[in-house]
Amino acid sequence: MSSFVPIPSRPVIALLTDFGLNDGYIGVMKGVILTICSDAHCIDITHDIAPQNVAAAAWILATAYRYFPTDTVFTCVVDPGVGSKRGAIAVHAGSWRFVGPDNGLFSYIYKEQTVQQAVALTNAAYHLPNVSSTFHGRDIFAPASAHIARGVPLDKLGAPLDPAILQRLDIASPVRNNDSIEGHIAHIDRFGNLITNIPLTLVPDLFSNPQIHAVLPAKGTVITHVRRFFGEQTQNDTPFLYSDSSGYIGIAIRNGDAARVLRAFYGEPVIITFVTSNDR
Amino acid sequence: MSSFVPIPSRPVIALLTDFGLNDGYIGVMKGVILTICSDAHCIDITHDIAPQNVAAAAWILATAYRYFPTDTVFTCVVDPGVGSKRGAIAVHAGSWRFVGPDNGLFSYIYKEQTVQQAVALTNAAYHLPNVSSTFHGRDIFAPASAHIARGVPLDKLGAPLDPAILQRLDIASPVRNNDSIEGHIAHIDRFGNLITNIPLTLVPDLFSNPQIHAVLPAKGTVITHVRRFFGEQTQNDTPFLYSDSSGYIGIAIRNGDAARVLRAFYGEPVIITFVTSNDR
Amino acid sequence: MSSFVPIPSRPVIALLTDFGLNDGYIGVMKGVILTICSDAHCIDITHDIAPQNVAAAAWILATAYRYFPTDTVFTCVVDPGVGSKRGAIAVHAGSWRFVGPDNGLFSYIYKEQTVQQAVALTNAAYHLPNVSSTFHGRDIFAPASAHIARGVPLDKLGAPLDPAILQRLDIASPVRNNDSIEGHIAHIDRFGNLITNIPLTLVPDLFSNPQIHAVLPAKGTVITHVRRFFGEQTQNDTPFLYSDSSGYIGIAIRNGDAARVLRAFYGEPVIITFVTSNDR
Repeated sequence: MSSFVPIPSRPVIALLTDFGLNDGYIGVMKGVILTICSDAHCIDITHDIAPQNVAAAAWILATAYRYFPTDTVFTCVVDPGVGSKRGAIAVHAGSWRFVGPDNGLFSYIYKEQTVQQAVALTNAAYHLPNVSSTFHGRDIFAPASAHIARGVPLDKLGAPLDPAILQRLDIASPVRNNDSIEGHIAHIDRFGNLITNIPLTLVPDLFSNPQIHAVLPAKGTVITHVRRFFGEQTQNDTPFLYSDSSGYIGIAIRNGDAARVLRAFYGEPVIITFVTSNDR
Repeated sequence: MSSFVPIPSRPVIALLTDFGLNDGYIGVMKGVILTICSDAHCIDITHDIAPQNVAAAAWILATAYRYFPTDTVFTCVVDPGVGSKRGAIAVHAGSWRFVGPDNGLFSYIYKEQTVQQAVALTNAAYHLPNVSSTFHGRDIFAPASAHIARGVPLDKLGAPLDPAILQRLDIASPVRNNDSIEGHIAHIDRFGNLITNIPLTLVPDLFSNPQIHAVLPAKGTVITHVRRFFGEQTQNDTPFLYSDSSGYIGIAIRNGDAARVLRAFYGEPVIITFVTSNDR
Repeated sequence: MSSFVPIPSRPVIALLTDFGLNDGYIGVMKGVILTICSDAHCIDITHDIAPQNVAAAAWILATAYRYFPTDTVFTCVVDPGVGSKRGAIAVHAGSWRFVGPDNGLFSYIYKEQTVQQAVALTNAAYHLPNVSSTFHGRDIFAPASAHIARGVPLDKLGAPLDPAILQRLDIASPVRNNDSIEGHIAHIDRFGNLITNIPLTLVPDLFSNPQIHAVLPAKGTVITHVRRFFGEQTQNDTPFLYSDSSGYIGIAIRNGDAARVLRAFYGEPVIITFVTSNDR
């Protein structure tokens, strides 16, 4: 039997969507949230995910969630399948709760945290009275998040789900070979920095081993410089490897846009090699 | 005689402007609000209304306000006439209060809600000390909203206005004929979906009557498909009718931008017909 | 000896960065802030400063800070030197506190307010446990701001600094001659309005002296019209001088984009003259 457990003042609800800020959709979701949970602290992670790019949203959530207070409710809506049979879920993983469509948005969370409880948002008592077929952010996910934030236990919101059946993206981990690591570009940020899926922990000697370089085979780009920070002396037009704030290895150009200069794209292969090849 | 009636903790102030987020104007308005009403919850509806497009702002407000808590103060500033003789008003309509220029921004509110009280913001005691001629959002509308949020009755803020003389846009309602409804495109959202001014309630058999289709006469576009949700199986390049979350009929292309593909524009006529014409 | 002085409920933290809203960086900073100071009110000034444009950020902060409540903590991160030896500082000036890199961001504050205290953010106890070399907004500035907001005295955060050695931009003041004032374009806003560094107080007869006009020598543009507000009758394509809400003289085109029409640029010289020259 579950009982109502009020959460201390000012619960945090963090929102991540691809709705943009032009149309008032996010304001409406916050209006719904505050109507149900008047003390909620609504924090935007971003709403500028490329439309329907579940993988990009999952990556940004992965870099962000650990920095939020425990008990934060993450309301994440990048939802190409809205209105279809895809599930709507709430998940308790680690010290946080995650609400959104069951389409792989939370794949990194499942890898990194223990899933303690998962439910399908099937109880209409916790939806808005009229659920549209196109805006579940407003009609299902915002009210569910607000009810969770004010202390409603997950098992009130719907039927329990086996965590093993939650949808997961095929997140390619980098492949470690003898003298190289093969990964890809997992994110391109606003400055044009390219962030790989290769964690710095896989290349602990990045800053001390002058033999290390990176190859982007799609264009034949070879990167031989490594910099500890953007301001470190380097030529303006030379790409360099750096340790991104996400914990992964990045590729940047000082005062420039590496994505544009290197004509790089999301998912493009990146190979880190540890010895100088003869033909370079 | 009016008296000070404190409103319970954490009043909500919802902001809607065309100021964009590049220049700090919205931050300044919130600074003014918090200086006067330190507990105010400031929620952005959007600040990306096309500059001075009062009609678009009025439409977005119309789709949003019902989802906010009662007593929410809506601070709306799309104000081509700033500094001129146009009025500055606060209106109590339905369960909400609306603050902004008297230029038609609240036209849908007046149609849909009972206006209980309207005042001109003439009392300088509730303005900032120095009122500029170009930024009434900061100098008049933000402070008025914050004073209302902390419980100041409307009639303290200025002279009463007859609701009948408030400015109204010429909002064309759809025209119902025997075998068709003539409307227009009232909004184009970030995904390129076209949202008409034809409510689903006017076409209750949209999903069951295979004879229904739509014509956009400006380009001769004919739309014969109807989908309950975006994920329902359809070809990627075929436009279809759907029920938008606003309650109005929309036109979309799966995984595409209908506005771009159909070269559609704001205000473009849309005709819903109920029988197949012979010459189609 | 400093002691812990709790600040009353709901301290305000105002954020100003060039991080944009696409990548989740601002959400992460707010997550860090709320983890440390759960009651903080986070207000965005703007995050759309052109990347690494310290001068533009300094100008926007200068036009905004006076409108915020006393005790507001301003967290400002436009930081081309992140990771290098540039200092990280917290400054108590006027009634506010300012946190950010020591690179001139606070130049206008130092000119306009008395600096009461300045410290280097050297005490790692008030940083996140692992400080990256690329995201001090998250790892140093957000936690420092949150600790200040919850009442930690500045001198706990690090070593005291002599205000005289804080970095300052070379902010050119306008030059007053006998019959002219020479300034420049200090900001271009989202509407394309050009805002000069010439305060209205230097031209008190702007609205009464028909001899006043402006010259932009780079393109030979001469502006002879002056308007009190945007709606005042004028031709749509004629640029005019006006009193910007920032307190400085601006140049605008009614219903148009002055920056585009006049091909104006940041820093471009603007000369206000008081008598008609013969050769005009």
